[in-house]
Amino acid sequence: MAKIGVMLSGCGVFDGSEIYETVITLLAIDRSGAEAVCMAPNMEQMHVVNHLTGDVAAGEKRNVLVEAARLARGKIRDLKDVKAAEIDALILPGGFGAAKNLSDFAVKGAECEVHPEVTRLIREIMTERKPLGAICIAPAVLARVLGTDKVAHKLTIGNDEGTAQALTAMGAEHVNCPVTDIVIDKENKLVSTPAYMLAGHISEAAEGIEKAVKALVKMI
Amino acid sequence: MAKIGVMLSGCGVFDGSEIYETVITLLAIDRSGAEAVCMAPNMEQMHVVNHLTGDVAAGEKRNVLVEAARLARGKIRDLKDVKAAEIDALILPGGFGAAKNLSDFAVKGAECEVHPEVTRLIREIMTERKPLGAICIAPAVLARVLGTDKVAHKLTIGNDEGTAQALTAMGAEHVNCPVTDIVIDKENKLVSTPAYMLAGHISEAAEGIEKAVKALVKMI
Repeated sequence: MAKIGVMLSGCGVFDGSEIYETVITLLAIDRSGAEAVCMAPNMEQMHVVNHLTGDVAAGEKRNVLVEAARLARGKIRDLKDVKAAEIDALILPGGFGAAKNLSDFAVKGAECEVHPEVTRLIREIMTERKPLGAICIAPAVLARVLGTDKVAHKLTIGNDEGTAQALTAMGAEHVNCPVTDIVIDKENKLVSTPAYMLAGHISEAAEGIEKAVKALVKMI
Repeated sequence: MAKIGVMLSGCGVFDGSEIYETVITLLAIDRSGAEAVCMAPNMEQMHVVNHLTGDVAAGEKRNVLVEAARLARGKIRDLKDVKAAEIDALILPGGFGAAKNLSDFAVKGAECEVHPEVTRLIREIMTERKPLGAICIAPAVLARVLGTDKVAHKLTIGNDEGTAQALTAMGAEHVNCPVTDIVIDKENKLVSTPAYMLAGHISEAAEGIEKAVKALVKMI
């Protein structure tokens, strides 16, 4: 049974992993006959956002791994203990957590830094020529790591001009893509889909993510 | 477009709404062409559970409506403002939140009390003869309200003997049911499915929930 790593960044669109994207990914992995291996970095979240008001909850602190465990029903591993050799592919759901916790792209854009353990696992996956998927804003994380390593690569975050320019600045070739579709970089075994960068409805995000997981599994 | 109320109880299987059950419900509603109307009571959670360790996070407090807002991407209403007249059906996902926040079934079993606003909306839905769905442990909430009102009714929580006996004690007829199936009470327009009372895999829970939402929409 193929094992697909799912890298989480908390639990909630505004400060962690986008919940719908994550669950749709996990369901698509299970339906493909593969096994999901959830993981997250053991670190404090950049901040906590009250999802009812949209405001930052001043003074509140939460841990990325502990909150991501909600999305994994407790079955999650500390990212630092996961090696590429244990998994057959890796996928990063979106949500602001990818741009606030896995990296600081939300604050620094193309000048962002990626969490060292995230960088380490992405590099291992690339070195072992295993497939790598990214959803929503998460392609920004891949662009930063691959761009730093001078790997020419293709990704999509949908069609937002500012974000696309930032990806280009980091070294990616950005390809515009509708929400229900995916972009594949065969050379590097990358797949990406816009999901909630564009989705108005959960079913739109699901269509793209289901295609992305299928493509990822096919590349194993 | 039909509107289906989705009553949430937080965000996370051990102290709130079961995340997979909720997202699969929302996706099935969207794919059926209906609109989901998320709601939750504005109250403190019974407690906060660290989903990584399974332990209660001593001293930590979270609000049910605020946490449930994570599951609704911020688009959620205070349960007290939602009237049955505004929706065409109502469904309750499971998770311990149904038994810890919407009611205290997790503590008191068949002697449980249901949150007054939850009781109020369920009674309105029954009075207006609109369909009512419940997933996983949430049928316990329906059993308590309908049982108190002396309404003979049929529900399932899967096949757990102790829980089934508690439902029977509250006035329900319990029907054993596999995870991928549903139980329909035509008379009262009730549908229930075991989901994570039995599911080993997310795809098993999804199969039952997708059937439940289809049945619910059909009864509108």
